[in-house]
Amino acid sequence: MDFVWKGHIIDSLDRHSLRVRENSYLVCQEGRCAGVFDVLPEQYRNLPLEDFGDRLIIPGMTDLHIHAPQFAFRGLGMDMELLDWLNTHTFPEEAKYRDLDYARRAYGQFTAHLRRSETTRACIFATVHVPATELLMEQLEASGLVTYVGKVNMNRNGPLYLIEPSTFQAVRETRQWLEETAARFDRTKPILTPRFIPSCTDDLLYRLADLRAEFGVPVQSHLSENLGEIAWVRELVPTAKHYGDAYRKFGLLGGDYPCIMAHCVHSDEAELELLRENGVFIAHSPESNMNIASGVAPVNRFLDLEIPTGLATDVAGGSHESMFRAMTHAIQASKLRWRLLDQSVAPLTFDTAFYLATRGGGAFFGQVGAFDPGYELDALVLDDGNLDHPQPLTARERLERLAYLGDERNIHGKAVAGTRLF
Amino acid sequence: MDFVWKGHIIDSLDRHSLRVRENSYLVCQEGRCAGVFDVLPEQYRNLPLEDFGDRLIIPGMTDLHIHAPQFAFRGLGMDMELLDWLNTHTFPEEAKYRDLDYARRAYGQFTAHLRRSETTRACIFATVHVPATELLMEQLEASGLVTYVGKVNMNRNGPLYLIEPSTFQAVRETRQWLEETAARFDRTKPILTPRFIPSCTDDLLYRLADLRAEFGVPVQSHLSENLGEIAWVRELVPTAKHYGDAYRKFGLLGGDYPCIMAHCVHSDEAELELLRENGVFIAHSPESNMNIASGVAPVNRFLDLEIPTGLATDVAGGSHESMFRAMTHAIQASKLRWRLLDQSVAPLTFDTAFYLATRGGGAFFGQVGAFDPGYELDALVLDDGNLDHPQPLTARERLERLAYLGDERNIHGKAVAGTRLF
Repeated sequence: MDFVWKGHIIDSLDRHSLRVRENSYLVCQEGRCAGVFDVLPEQYRNLPLEDFGDRLIIPGMTDLHIHAPQFAFRGLGMDMELLDWLNTHTFPEEAKYRDLDYARRAYGQFTAHLRRSETTRACIFATVHVPATELLMEQLEASGLVTYVGKVNMNRNGPLYLIEPSTFQAVRETRQWLEETAARFDRTKPILTPRFIPSCTDDLLYRLADLRAEFGVPVQSHLSENLGEIAWVRELVPTAKHYGDAYRKFGLLGGDYPCIMAHCVHSDEAELELLRENGVFIAHSPESNMNIASGVAPVNRFLDLEIPTGLATDVAGGSHESMFRAMTHAIQASKLRWRLLDQSVAPLTFDTAFYLATRGGGAFFGQVGAFDPGYELDALVLDDGNLDHPQPLTARERLERLAYLGDERNIHGKAVAGTRLF
Repeated sequence: MDFVWKGHIIDSLDRHSLRVRENSYLVCQEGRCAGVFDVLPEQYRNLPLEDFGDRLIIPGMTDLHIHAPQFAFRGLGMDMELLDWLNTHTFPEEAKYRDLDYARRAYGQFTAHLRRSETTRACIFATVHVPATELLMEQLEASGLVTYVGKVNMNRNGPLYLIEPSTFQAVRETRQWLEETAARFDRTKPILTPRFIPSCTDDLLYRLADLRAEFGVPVQSHLSENLGEIAWVRELVPTAKHYGDAYRKFGLLGGDYPCIMAHCVHSDEAELELLRENGVFIAHSPESNMNIASGVAPVNRFLDLEIPTGLATDVAGGSHESMFRAMTHAIQASKLRWRLLDQSVAPLTFDTAFYLATRGGGAFFGQVGAFDPGYELDALVLDDGNLDHPQPLTARERLERLAYLGDERNIHGKAVAGTRLF
């Protein structure tokens, strides 16, 4: 957990700008960044040093929202909107995770891909099944990644072959899962995961809020992704001022516990104000929001309001686990939003997309996502040797090009909280 | 040029549907498709047969619009709109192709990537420089790909270090280039390439129309990509009814010669009617239109009007030479257009995107882009062995997944007009 890496070091200073330090030294002590230096200070000269030469070193990336069981059908069945897509593709696939052999094979593939990807931290949805969710947590723990994993809750408006048959059973199994996993792993923690308001009865949501308070765990869910979904929630919870207010009303949004809401494509000003007041993280999922035709979230508006925001692949609404692809999709989608819908919110720059993928989402895990002194050291070593070019490029240009053109072949090395994965 | 390939054969029947023939035989005779058969007919049993087992065999793809010199800065400098992007990135890079050593290195990389890609046919912009353009044509001829290549014409509104200094010189050099290349290659043909109306004086455009008639060559250019560009053309050619009408007025659109116009994002009904009447091909370039914030073309409207339409990567407005990525970007952009702008034009389905990439654009080259009997045989053998999955998928599902997740590693074999490239 103590080492020095040398290379061209790039991280995000803030939402507007990168910090590029060429031919510099990144020092890791006890899993945390001790600093980045032009000249290696005397006190670190006894640490093992690896010189990565002309390669880039960047922070690991945080995927704030991804569905592990949906990895099995990534890139398939993309010609539908959310509610049809759930019923046709998602629910039948998720039901298979009752079978632990299937879960072992499918989650093994998911975990192996995630380990090879740009992601060092992730917030993950599993399925309703406790045994398969615990198996996924075991696999993730062994991978070296740092993650929150959620056993999904859903006890209505889903197929009988999948949903939890009663609130009683849902709460009993969720409690059992929290008891079994809250302290079991070093890198893998449980997170309460009501699928979304339409999937959970009022009494289940109230009981999940009790469990949240009892176990002190965070919450993740979906919010204002699709217009049909929003109208449905308005019918289901007529006393709520808006979709976000429904989560608040049930005690799942706000208070002292961290919370992530995926999407927020169609959140109005009142809903955004609720998120801002409560420090709720928004998981922006641009590819998913394109693929199932949800729309484009106004990310620069979120950032102007100082709502904590990160980036997400949302596999399998998104097709790919690559956070580089999520970055470029975020930029592209923001440009179309600006051109087609609303010129009051500026498109995302490359620097902002990189901020979202690193420092923005990393903040959900504490001091993560940058090379500030004291931050946990998640880092990627990038090799762009296979992306040929007729002339030299700056380190910054090479990073932009990697985001558009790179893939897992370009990830030469990876460390999470100071532990080298490869 | 005579062979039989066995595998799961998929091509596009029409804009609405795929044609999937599993475990079938694709027969090539004299570079053309003799048919696809469940059982190999007696008369073909003496041909060399290669059994690709569980792999997919699909038509090669046509990239209707790509800039070879811009390949060198693909994936860079994406935070600008068209006119600024041209001046900041494109023109300085294109000026380097005065230097043949630079051109050899850069075009060599471009050609090597294109050869490895899904593309078997392409319509390519070079630069204003005749020697470098001819060098590119030599490299492409050697690659085995079938292409049209254009020496670019531009004699105004560009930097002095790049533009042609006079109409006289532009015409003399274009004529020289046409004389030298019209019959020189088997697979590589010249195409007249005025950059766009703002780049060419009226007299140059009239003279290019004369050269078109004299040499009987097709034309490619840009049309209605960006709102600032369209307003500029309105000022430059006040007598034209619209941007497309300016090309018509100068004699470059219509008549007996094939023509490709890239983009048509903002074409109005009158302009589309002009394109339809004249059988002009539209090169839809979805990633480029996102990256430089141009908008999204109404592709299903083009197809409803029976305007011939194909797909394009438009490197380096697009970052990547992959036609699979162009397909998924086309689908994604069409969904955002539908959601954010105009629900009267349906989003593109996977089947339509595949049609555009194969049969749609292939038609510019004649009988190309499908496995109909008599069609020139361009084919890709696809291996998705690296995209793991916990359960079996249909051939159709595997193709959709390859479009979202695949890259050049998945291209196991490639033939162009019956000649095997690898």
